[in-house]
Amino acid sequence: MKRLLIIGIGAGDPDHLTFQAAKAIAAADAFLLVDKGTAKSDLSRLRHDMIAAHGTPPYRIVEEDDPERDRTTPAYTAAVETWRSRRAEIYERFVRDELADGETGALLVWGDPGVYDSTLAALAEIDAEFEHEVIPGITSIAALTARHRVGLTRVGRPVHITTGRRLAAEGPTADDVLVMLDAHNSFAGAAPGHHIYWGAYLGTPDEILISGPVSEVADDIRAARADARARKGWIMDTYLLRRED
Amino acid sequence: MKRLLIIGIGAGDPDHLTFQAAKAIAAADAFLLVDKGTAKSDLSRLRHDMIAAHGTPPYRIVEEDDPERDRTTPAYTAAVETWRSRRAEIYERFVRDELADGETGALLVWGDPGVYDSTLAALAEIDAEFEHEVIPGITSIAALTARHRVGLTRVGRPVHITTGRRLAAEGPTADDVLVMLDAHNSFAGAAPGHHIYWGAYLGTPDEILISGPVSEVADDIRAARADARARKGWIMDTYLLRRED
Repeated sequence: MKRLLIIGIGAGDPDHLTFQAAKAIAAADAFLLVDKGTAKSDLSRLRHDMIAAHGTPPYRIVEEDDPERDRTTPAYTAAVETWRSRRAEIYERFVRDELADGETGALLVWGDPGVYDSTLAALAEIDAEFEHEVIPGITSIAALTARHRVGLTRVGRPVHITTGRRLAAEGPTADDVLVMLDAHNSFAGAAPGHHIYWGAYLGTPDEILISGPVSEVADDIRAARADARARKGWIMDTYLLRRED
Repeated sequence: MKRLLIIGIGAGDPDHLTFQAAKAIAAADAFLLVDKGTAKSDLSRLRHDMIAAHGTPPYRIVEEDDPERDRTTPAYTAAVETWRSRRAEIYERFVRDELADGETGALLVWGDPGVYDSTLAALAEIDAEFEHEVIPGITSIAALTARHRVGLTRVGRPVHITTGRRLAAEGPTADDVLVMLDAHNSFAGAAPGHHIYWGAYLGTPDEILISGPVSEVADDIRAARADARARKGWIMDTYLLRRED
């Protein structure tokens, strides 16, 4: 039987790696790295460094380009599903052609494989025989709240985790809302009365943290975001919106 | 200046520890361990083991009993706030009496310090001068979804994190609801049509995992929960409720 490890590697700080993840990296015979165009060099380098630090030679590294996703269509979910099927084909090729029976392959996933990541859903589509195991990772959510030294939750109260797209459409659905994947600064229009804890490139040397009432810091965040995105070519950010009592 | 590190140590598996957390443990001169009565021996042992594995001798360990919380009152939030103030006094004593200027103290927090944990809120109440830093940890949420090999989120959809108490009162507020702190098996009455992914003592040798339609597995979970709680004297569990399309 072939075995696949889906390893959460944390939000960007190499020290976010858990001992469990390091042991999983050490157990792998082959790694599949799938990277996006613009973020490729930074993100790929961090993964190569982790493999070099914790892998057990000899190991093989297979690199593939992330399939392009259609970002022009309004049918977001359908576009993601098409893209995911193309990723599934990449995973299937890796398991079929790059792993021998009895070997272990590894996929390194930013943050935690459970949070807005398509790897597990894509693996469910593939047609090869393999066992798999998931290694939890430090999410950008935990990295964000740690750096701001605030709780994600308050006593006995819920927190909603959602997307920028949904925040723009629905507004804040709870007093505490954690927003991911927001390319459009939706907080400004959707939650002017909230407090925001915003962070980008969490855990990396490029980390940016801004917090304050949305009405006061929205412009700062917008400017910091645009500037960083232009400079680096990509951005990963997230934020917590909190309605104070 | 005195320094305090609030260190997330993961959900129960010593290998959930991150390299960042291990370095933070190595940097501490003194540790404060506050433990609950019944869970004391198991949970305290795991923390002692982590300190022994990663601490830099000589270090000091201060152990305090967790203040009793009034579990009979219906005023849940008020009871938690009273209890938290008593914990704040313990932290204040630790910073004031156990740390010299220039020294570093550490608090080891299960899971992640941001998720339904009172340490940060209690520290905000204390009256001593100190710097503090928060180290993110593997949450029981990430441990749960990893062990069940499912995503916490689905494409473009929100997930709500809430308490058993709220689930019982409000029912599921989204198609995906992650429930913590549920002592009363609220899933059975609140979400009979959902799929449940349940886990207890995640990442430990006592781990129990059960999943399936709530209507089919509710009795199994109830029985497993009662049995484990009776046998060990305490339980930590969590679950994801998912409405399938």
